[in-house]
Amino acid sequence: MNTQPPAEVGMKVDEVDTPALLVDLDILEQNLQRMADELARTPVRLRAHAKTHKCPEVARRQIELGAIGLCCQKVSEAEAMVDGGIRDILISNEIVGPRKLERLARLAQRSRVMVCVDDPDQVNILNQVMQDHQVHLQVLVEIEVGGTKCGVPPGQPAVDLARRIDVATHLDFAGLQSYFGAAQHLVDFSQRSAAVAKSQSLTRELIGTLAQHGLACPVVSGGGTGAYDLESASGVYTEIQAGSYVFMDHGYTKNLTADGKPCNQFQQSLFVYATVMSRPVPERAVVDAGWKAVGVDCGFPIVADRPDIEYFQGGDEHGKLRLHDPETQLRVGDKLRLVPGNCDPTVNLYDWYVLFRQRRVEAIWAITARGAVL
Amino acid sequence: MNTQPPAEVGMKVDEVDTPALLVDLDILEQNLQRMADELARTPVRLRAHAKTHKCPEVARRQIELGAIGLCCQKVSEAEAMVDGGIRDILISNEIVGPRKLERLARLAQRSRVMVCVDDPDQVNILNQVMQDHQVHLQVLVEIEVGGTKCGVPPGQPAVDLARRIDVATHLDFAGLQSYFGAAQHLVDFSQRSAAVAKSQSLTRELIGTLAQHGLACPVVSGGGTGAYDLESASGVYTEIQAGSYVFMDHGYTKNLTADGKPCNQFQQSLFVYATVMSRPVPERAVVDAGWKAVGVDCGFPIVADRPDIEYFQGGDEHGKLRLHDPETQLRVGDKLRLVPGNCDPTVNLYDWYVLFRQRRVEAIWAITARGAVL
Repeated sequence: MNTQPPAEVGMKVDEVDTPALLVDLDILEQNLQRMADELARTPVRLRAHAKTHKCPEVARRQIELGAIGLCCQKVSEAEAMVDGGIRDILISNEIVGPRKLERLARLAQRSRVMVCVDDPDQVNILNQVMQDHQVHLQVLVEIEVGGTKCGVPPGQPAVDLARRIDVATHLDFAGLQSYFGAAQHLVDFSQRSAAVAKSQSLTRELIGTLAQHGLACPVVSGGGTGAYDLESASGVYTEIQAGSYVFMDHGYTKNLTADGKPCNQFQQSLFVYATVMSRPVPERAVVDAGWKAVGVDCGFPIVADRPDIEYFQGGDEHGKLRLHDPETQLRVGDKLRLVPGNCDPTVNLYDWYVLFRQRRVEAIWAITARGAVL
Repeated sequence: MNTQPPAEVGMKVDEVDTPALLVDLDILEQNLQRMADELARTPVRLRAHAKTHKCPEVARRQIELGAIGLCCQKVSEAEAMVDGGIRDILISNEIVGPRKLERLARLAQRSRVMVCVDDPDQVNILNQVMQDHQVHLQVLVEIEVGGTKCGVPPGQPAVDLARRIDVATHLDFAGLQSYFGAAQHLVDFSQRSAAVAKSQSLTRELIGTLAQHGLACPVVSGGGTGAYDLESASGVYTEIQAGSYVFMDHGYTKNLTADGKPCNQFQQSLFVYATVMSRPVPERAVVDAGWKAVGVDCGFPIVADRPDIEYFQGGDEHGKLRLHDPETQLRVGDKLRLVPGNCDPTVNLYDWYVLFRQRRVEAIWAITARGAVL
């Protein structure tokens, strides 16, 4: 069921078949280095998120540059990373159901694995499964600090949950997950800063309360690409779960600095390469990349380096381009690079990265956790 | 890189791991039979669209019930169907680029293959590649009859293109593709009917013009699930490209009949099975199916049989549910069936169908053309 790669090493980029995930290797390396350098100046470590890239080749480079481990959202995603040689994984999510928990226990037998919980009953179930497999698991309490997704409130419910984990025979209370995803995408610096400050304040207070109960938090995990600078400066986190910084997308590029300038620490390294398959009328063209080739949950992609061309609509296999100038030179067979609105779900559509440097394909990497939804 | 199936044959449905694509086999069989019966009463044949299911197991059942062949949108999708035993494929799309055309030529050496064109230069390129591979290819001219996507206008440009194909040494002019996708989704019957009538009238006129030029159209292909009844009654099409009828989605179920009642020929057979992974507060729950588990290009999914629960937001791996009654019994670990807004991109996220009958898993089918974007 594997698809064939759309390219071969050594090929010119413009010979790559489409749609394909193109990665500018120079920019990828710059992004990897930049995050490593930035966090090296802080006491916070990087726990890079594999949900973005789903690829052990990227994960290994993150570890080489100092990341203490990876995060995954799914047990099957974590399996792919452990199969790829990664030995320290936080599953930054709640894991529910007997088949998944069985896989989680088996994974914990061959790697360091941490997982999140936000429900008392699940602590008991988790403990029972780990006991059945004679393995100990490190567990974080996930707290809700603005994300309104998973997580217990950061007060008494969190303390109760931590205690329950602490007394469970096969679980170790390892600390907190405090993740406020929406804060990452607040464009205005002061709003973003205030959101991070609020979530950090709630987390800090809880850490104090837990300490009063004799419950230490060696791990406080959270944060991400959009606000890692604020989060790493807060003194609350021990590790930052950044993922998107490796590739970027046009969702993150809207964020502004305190001076109102675009945040530019990381550059766009990931593109959906697409071919013009039809130019039926002067003001419209069609590319071969629709909903099955680029995630549109955060809006349509942008055409890189071509502000004169707008991806304005599409379908399952087509993207419709509006040409603001009908005289635009754009012929059937021409190729364009699209910048996705959200890199993570876009990556999940593909089996391969095509990595290029100086207009040549330098490597092809398998996206081994593509489709790892379980 | 294959994912593991989320179930085993014989298992109870509620033991299936999630997220998973569940298919109600009784309803799938009813849908397959219903379309076969409906078209059997007309001179029009079914050319079932594989872009929906991407699975030879479904394709073979469509052929057994009378479909003359399959359509595909991509060469790689067509390869998967031919590998699965299908021997008559229309690639209902323009195919551009040397790597794809080479694959197309090789495919034409082992199966009947037709393809669409809407560009004169591409006719020459196509002919050259077929000549290089010593194979003849049947070609349809795609005309634009309201879809504003690909396709030449159904006047002189279409005639010129047909002539060019007709004189090409290794191409045979086989007829027209006339597809107006948006007409399928016009909810109001009279609007839908008018849109189909207009596109049919343009097509009929062109067929007449082509006949005056000595160019017969043995194949006139188009139509789909949302308007197949109108399209098959029009007398214009020789074949209908319906795909979604096998599974359905909540996009199609909005369509109304002439009496203003919901169209109900086909029932929902496909579901994204999801588990409640968090119930942090009484009015909100979170399921394990986000943008990587269900296509949201046509809106959020609906929760089957649970009008009291609304999937109102989500993220890459989470779906947020609003519980209109905070007293709702819904616990962590409970499973729900989601009805996608658009079945095609949802299917493309998975490697496996889990087919059930009477609450037991009866079969697991590989989605062999999942990710076949080339």
